[in-house]
Parts: sequence; C-alpha cells; structure tokens
Amino acid sequence: MSTFLASLRGEKVNRFPVWLMRQAGRYMKAYRRLRSKVNTFLEFCSNVDLAVEVTLLPERILGIDALILFSDILVPLLPLGVKVEFKPKPFLKSPPIEELKEFDQAKVDFVFETIRKVKEKSELPLIGFAGAPFTLGAYIVEGQTSREFLNIRKLYHSDREKFNLLMEKLTEMTEEYLSAQISAGVDAVQLFDSWAFVLSPSAFKEYFNHLRRLMESLKRKHPEVPIIYFFRGSGHLFETAKDLPADALSVDWTIDIEKPLKVLSTKALQGNLDPALLYADREVIEREVTNFLQKVVNYRKTLFVFNLGHGLSPDMEEEKVKFLVEVVKRFKL
Amino acid sequence: MSTFLASLRGEKVNRFPVWLMRQAGRYMKAYRRLRSKVNTFLEFCSNVDLAVEVTLLPERILGIDALILFSDILVPLLPLGVKVEFKPKPFLKSPPIEELKEFDQAKVDFVFETIRKVKEKSELPLIGFAGAPFTLGAYIVEGQTSREFLNIRKLYHSDREKFNLLMEKLTEMTEEYLSAQISAGVDAVQLFDSWAFVLSPSAFKEYFNHLRRLMESLKRKHPEVPIIYFFRGSGHLFETAKDLPADALSVDWTIDIEKPLKVLSTKALQGNLDPALLYADREVIEREVTNFLQKVVNYRKTLFVFNLGHGLSPDMEEEKVKFLVEVVKRFKL
Repeated sequence: MSTFLASLRGEKVNRFPVWLMRQAGRYMKAYRRLRSKVNTFLEFCSNVDLAVEVTLLPERILGIDALILFSDILVPLLPLGVKVEFKPKPFLKSPPIEELKEFDQAKVDFVFETIRKVKEKSELPLIGFAGAPFTLGAYIVEGQTSREFLNIRKLYHSDREKFNLLMEKLTEMTEEYLSAQISAGVDAVQLFDSWAFVLSPSAFKEYFNHLRRLMESLKRKHPEVPIIYFFRGSGHLFETAKDLPADALSVDWTIDIEKPLKVLSTKALQGNLDPALLYADREVIEREVTNFLQKVVNYRKTLFVFNLGHGLSPDMEEEKVKFLVEVVKRFKL
Repeated sequence: MSTFLASLRGEKVNRFPVWLMRQAGRYMKAYRRLRSKVNTFLEFCSNVDLAVEVTLLPERILGIDALILFSDILVPLLPLGVKVEFKPKPFLKSPPIEELKEFDQAKVDFVFETIRKVKEKSELPLIGFAGAPFTLGAYIVEGQTSREFLNIRKLYHSDREKFNLLMEKLTEMTEEYLSAQISAGVDAVQLFDSWAFVLSPSAFKEYFNHLRRLMESLKRKHPEVPIIYFFRGSGHLFETAKDLPADALSVDWTIDIEKPLKVLSTKALQGNLDPALLYADREVIEREVTNFLQKVVNYRKTLFVFNLGHGLSPDMEEEKVKFLVEVVKRFKL
C-alpha cells in the first residue's frame, strides 16, 4: 500500500508521506504552459485531457506521495444554477438560496472522467475534494472572495433558518459529489473549509452538525475511503473540529502542531507549516521542516501526512518546493 | 471616576462600561454629513475641528462610556516617509525599511490638538490609539489591505533581521506617538493589532518581545494610563498574549469569552461578540448580549469593558447600534 494511505490508516511507514495543497499550480512552469492552451480557468478545469495532465504534473516534478484532482471547489456549484467567472479571482452570481437547483452530477461529468483517466495513468493514490459547506456558502452569499466574509456572518446572525437551509443544500450536494468522485476512483477525499476561520467557536459548533452529517453519510457508503477535513482557523476551531468523524484533520499554521498531536490518538493529522516558509533560504527550510518533523515523531510514527497550512502561491520557486518535498522524504522513521 | 476607567482598574462599578470600535463611522448619518465637507479621508482626519466633532458624536448619539480619538492607524506613518492614499481603501508607498525616517511628532500635531480640544469639550474618558507594530508593518510591506498578508509573512521567513528592524522602528515610533497622545490628554490607549491573526503561535511569540518592550516603556513613563491591546486572532494567540504587560486585552470573536475569563484574574478584558450580530433582530441582539454578560458576571463584576470583536461596518443601522449600547447599560451588576 502507498505510504500516504498507510499513514492515514495508522499502519507502519518508513517515512512520513507528503503532498502539498495547490501542488499543481501557477508557480510551476509546466502548469503555466498547459494553462496557456485555453482561455478561461473553467475551460482549463473542464478539459479532461488538460485536467489529467495537470493532476499528474507533481508526480514527475515533485515526487509527492499523493495526487490531488485538478479542479476548483466552485465547479459543483455550476449545476446548482450558480454562475461563476474567474477574472482571475472568482466572481459568483447565485439565485436566491431557496431557488438553488438540485445537484445534477451529469453536468460535471468531466470531473469523474478526469479521475478515471488519472487512475489509469498513475499508481499514486488520488485525492478527490470538495469545498466544505460553509466555505461554499460564504462564496455564494459573498459573491467573491473577501477578507471578512461579513455577509455570510450576517446571514448566520440575521436569518439562522436560511443559513441552515443553505448549509443543508450544500451538504447534500457535497455528499453526492464526493460519493461520485469515490465511485470514479479516488482513494481519499479532502474537504476544504478555507473560510471557516471567520466563525466564532459557538457558530462553528452549530455548523459542526452539518459537517458531521456529511461525513457520517459518506462513511456509511464508503467506509474504506479516508476523509480529510482541512480548515483554516485551526487554532480556535480545533477544540470542536477534533470530534468530527473525519479520518484526518488538516490544520493550518494557527495551531502549534504539538497541541493536536497531544490530544488526538486515533485520528491522522496533516499539516501545517506556514507556506511562506518557502520564501526562506534552503538552509532555513531544511532546519524548520526537520525540527517540525522531530516534534511530530515525538508523538507518533504514523497517522501523519506532511503538508503546509495552506496552498502554494504563484510566486513561489519550483526548485524550493521540490527541495521541501525532498527534505520531508529524507526524514526516516 | 468614570465607569470605563474604574472597570479597567478593577474598582467597583454598577454596570459594565461600553464603547465600540469605529463607533464614529460611516454607519452614522451625522458622520457622513461631516465627511462630505472635505475631499479626502486624510483631510478629514487632519482637520482638527472636524476630527473633534467626529470624536464627540457617539457621546450624544449612542451614550457610550468612552470616546476614542477619531483618526487612522496609518496617520503616524506619514512622518516616516510613507505615502498613504485612501481610495477609499488605503494604498501605501513606503521607502525601503532601512530608509524609513525618524518619527517627527510635530508633523502630526493635528492629532494632539484634536485630543486637547476633545478634552475641553467632554468629560468622558478619551482613548488614544495606534496601530501595533505588526499591523503597521503588514501595511507597509503589503502596500494595501490583504486577505493573507503573505508579504509580511514572507519577510518574516526570508529575512528575520529586516523583519525585526521594521518591528523595532515601528515600536519606537508607536511609543513616542502614544506618549505624545498621553501628554496631550488621553486617559487610556489602545493598540490595534488587526492583522495579528495571520501569525502562527511561534511567530507571534517572537513578535511578542517588541510588543512587550513597547508596553513596558509606556508604563514606565505613564504608569497611570491603562494600555489596551486589541488583537485579531485571539483564539490562537491568547495563550501568548495573556502575558503581555497590558492592562487590558481586547479580544475578537475567535475566542469563547469564558476562556480568558477563567485564566486572567488581574487583567481587564474587553470584547468580544461578532459585530455581525448587529444585523440580527433586536430580540436576538438583546438575548445574545444578555447571555454574554451573564457569562461574564459569573467570573467578574469589574475589569470588564463591553465592546465587539471588531469595528462597526458602514451598512449597520444606527438604531441597532444605539439599542446594543442600551442593552449593555441596562445590565446591572
């Protein structure tokens, strides 16, 4: 079995597995070359041949231990009737929450087709993914990225019923979407809750129930497929998130890794250095990553996947990213 | 003595004092009327008569327990040679860090003049303020507001020496600036660390030393003036921030208020409901605020100041803000 899946399942591994969020991204020359073949970002995601190629890039270039489907968390909103445009940041136009359409997976079949083709071409485990309901809801209500996501917080405080209706609709869609990805062949799924950090601990506790239902339902259908929950704001939300029925929690850099290491014994952890570390010299990267892994190994020798606390940025150096992966792989258990 | 200062000092009060960040702001009709008298936001801040009037507005309109100087945290960057423009969001052009000028308080004399005039016109305690060094540094390095503040994190990881030089320069300036505000008559000072939330716990620990020096130096010169430290990211930074030599910690909504209430016995607390609560119905506001204050009173009957976890937003209703203040003032100890 792959190091990635073995470590997620708590089996013995010789080294910690590593993959990186946005590992196939604009920082990579080969990615930019492929990107230039089509006009819009949505074409890029929905062109199966290109999406397959992009998904596979990090295997050859970085030597990571898992691939992640190349797509965007906003893709499954299209069948709901949400209009999405990337300029290059996303702008959304959504019908009123009550009028969001039922999810029709046939409309995003290119995603499942991409998964099937990647599985034919690589033996690496493939991670499927979806945005978590809160993050998708924040995009829908806000219409774009935002620093504060005030409008979804407004909805939460001013109309709890409608907020919960939105979360329910998105939970249902996400469950179907991830199930279909699993049926198409992904080996694990990751939920991205990139904007969860704007939630107070008590608001997150309420939202928790939607997440739990989503995960429980997936687990019932696909008990063998690990669910990874990535959430920004790990520092203040971990206390609640730790009780989710996920197989792994992927934490951002707002939490000292020792805290979850101390508390969680049966769940895997993924994370969590600040991606900005990649701007440092190789010497600093090597020292910081090694010290970090040394901390981890004081607590566990499995149930850990190295990743950063968030995605890679376009201006990062490909060579440095490669070096980071090497440092992690060199660290023997 | 005023309820505000008494509570900050741990003396007996009949009710918890209340003021709100951005209490004089665009949500307020009278503010918008005054704002329309000048072209740029910087003119608005530097016109002493207008700044005095704006500072005083919330006394009459809201009935809060403290005034806060009307100005902007970017104002003291002007004498350092930083160019600031509001369109309406701030855009900055800064010389290289090594070439930032020495702070010359004469160049922002309008701030001290505003303070002196406000003190002549009102008996309410007046809060002076400044941006905390990290938040100012983030603005300088980024050149504008940002969701991720990746560039200051980049500086932190790639050139620690230069990062610390920037923090030292800003610490020195801020110390002088707040000292001068105190000499001009403010009764308390608040440091705004609005972007601290992008820091990891370990990066915050390093930055902590700059904050400590700043506060210790102010305390030596003005032992009687309370220092309030407001920091976003309270959920993951509180563990370290609690040891700062501030008189009060002003926390955002990423922390359940019971946590600092349990831990801090001699420091005052200020905060911390999500400002988005103001979009809710009066009924909800009243219930949430009352439940919140009930929690506080289980731990303490002084050393507490009601505020929100962040500033008010332009689209909030003046009447609701007024109602919020009433609810807090009605809650007797």
